[in-house]
Amino acid sequence: MTNTLSLPRSVEWNESYITLLDQQQLPGKVEYIKLQTIKDVWDAITTLKVRGAPAIGITAAFGLALSALSYDTDSVKEFNKKLALDQQYLASSRPTAVNLFWALERVAKSAESASSVNEAKTKVVHEAIQIQVEDEETCYRIGDHALSLFKKKDKIMTICNAGSIATAYYGTALAPFHLSKQRDIPLEVFACETRPVLQGSRLTAWELQQSGVDVTLITDNMAAHTIKTKGINGIIVGADRIAANGDTANKIGTYGLALLAKAFGIPFYVAAPQSTFDLSIQDGSSIPIEERSPKEVTHIGDTQIAPDGISVYNPAFDVTPSELITAIITEHGIIHSPSFESIQKVLLQSAQ
Amino acid sequence: MTNTLSLPRSVEWNESYITLLDQQQLPGKVEYIKLQTIKDVWDAITTLKVRGAPAIGITAAFGLALSALSYDTDSVKEFNKKLALDQQYLASSRPTAVNLFWALERVAKSAESASSVNEAKTKVVHEAIQIQVEDEETCYRIGDHALSLFKKKDKIMTICNAGSIATAYYGTALAPFHLSKQRDIPLEVFACETRPVLQGSRLTAWELQQSGVDVTLITDNMAAHTIKTKGINGIIVGADRIAANGDTANKIGTYGLALLAKAFGIPFYVAAPQSTFDLSIQDGSSIPIEERSPKEVTHIGDTQIAPDGISVYNPAFDVTPSELITAIITEHGIIHSPSFESIQKVLLQSAQ
Repeated sequence: MTNTLSLPRSVEWNESYITLLDQQQLPGKVEYIKLQTIKDVWDAITTLKVRGAPAIGITAAFGLALSALSYDTDSVKEFNKKLALDQQYLASSRPTAVNLFWALERVAKSAESASSVNEAKTKVVHEAIQIQVEDEETCYRIGDHALSLFKKKDKIMTICNAGSIATAYYGTALAPFHLSKQRDIPLEVFACETRPVLQGSRLTAWELQQSGVDVTLITDNMAAHTIKTKGINGIIVGADRIAANGDTANKIGTYGLALLAKAFGIPFYVAAPQSTFDLSIQDGSSIPIEERSPKEVTHIGDTQIAPDGISVYNPAFDVTPSELITAIITEHGIIHSPSFESIQKVLLQSAQ
Repeated sequence: MTNTLSLPRSVEWNESYITLLDQQQLPGKVEYIKLQTIKDVWDAITTLKVRGAPAIGITAAFGLALSALSYDTDSVKEFNKKLALDQQYLASSRPTAVNLFWALERVAKSAESASSVNEAKTKVVHEAIQIQVEDEETCYRIGDHALSLFKKKDKIMTICNAGSIATAYYGTALAPFHLSKQRDIPLEVFACETRPVLQGSRLTAWELQQSGVDVTLITDNMAAHTIKTKGINGIIVGADRIAANGDTANKIGTYGLALLAKAFGIPFYVAAPQSTFDLSIQDGSSIPIEERSPKEVTHIGDTQIAPDGISVYNPAFDVTPSELITAIITEHGIIHSPSFESIQKVLLQSAQ
């Protein structure tokens, strides 16, 4: 039996513009904005209106295609020159999102072999849409694999929003929950609110509500007590970047949850598509950690919650060492006890 | 050399009223309110205008004394009956604060042997003030012992506000930092903001700023990453209630920090006066955990940060098992590797 999901899509291609769910307005307001220029797209990514590695990639790909449609030239060489500049511009919108670079590269490459500007324009649009279609398929497969790791009535914890609205559809870490609704398998989700930007309370709680998943919101510092008193069976998170050895950069707070999972002897899962792996990076120590504005910590909306002039440390990500990860769940299968070898095996097999 | 501290006092006795620092207004506004009736005092405790076990105890003691001054009777028996009722009323303002019961009991008992109502009134006022004087001495001693555990330039993490404004003066977990300022010993403090009520960002950050301590604010989920990347040397927290075996109930998030301290091999200290011990409770499993309103999690000020109708789990405290605690620091000395025996030894020695 398959139930119908009434989940919103975060980003859609509309030929002359891009429709984007403004995730900064959630949960108070469900607002779709129109992106009509490459600058609109750059701004939307930088100001976190769209977030989540795959959704950023799709949005950037759409942005590059949208800009390419406006190039007023008959020269394919000139076209590709402009495309390369726009690619570079969009790549600067978020320094740690490897999917962003990957998606832009793919769109840019698609036009290389075009014999006319018209063909090049068709190709970049097709390629951008193809990235979205493939991502939905990817997420479905991740969800399918992940759901196989859970039992009926399991209580699972997550942080941030590795959800449908962070991808083309279904999400990564949240995909098994959406699929569990489609398949009538009851699961209980505990969502950490995810300070400072509150993606857990603003986005994950809202998104799981949309598809009717049983979700309970907690603050991040309630994780240990909740695992103990509620009998949490496992933790699943997304990823921003995974090194060749499995070390995983993800939203700040992930590392702490992984250490708690170890302390309580419950599995800790990372759900991520192949495109999140950066095999050029040996381990987590080489992953740059973005530090963001102190104001994210000292203010919520218009409310000041810390004294003037206070020093703030605001790293946006942390790195979870591979040895704390029970398995990485990809579209190609589950990588148990991730290591350089086991990752190579699953990712290279899929390339054959 | 001793520097002068310019720290505010959270509660003061003024014969016909009580002056209270309204900690709910911090850090935006430093406001002292006048409590003129026992109802004012009950409200102030319930709405967290005053918080921290010792400060609640002092405020309740002052409240009971204030009410006693208004009893219109010449009968000591009648006086003590009224006092018992008011004691019961104030005890209902916060169900897990053992210092509250202890302070009220002390004030109530002080009047038992009085031979006139006038003498009884003098005695309850004297006893309430005495509780404050003793608490300041207690905190100073805790700070002195705790500071002996730290080295110059150590980086120490804390959660919630076990500070001067949570006690008569100096605080418990924050006492070593205030004393380090008085004695010119540089320490670096990392304060977890402490969701949902944000005592860390609103109060601890503000309080340490007042005395010029080097303090950096982080969100709670940054603890693991901060311990690793900043090289945190230890964690020190306060306590709401300590069982006979050393299990410690404290602000939600404490348990998670204790597990992180173990994972990183750094010491985890609890700083608390003898009055926080509840030796009638064998272990942490019998400590009731207060659950508070979902609105604390879903709203900050006027800003709604979670969708309407979301389920919330909001435990105010958690229990840290004794085996995760390196030492409990009391006014009577440091209890290393706390256990039923080591706790009895230090607390009973002090009673001799």
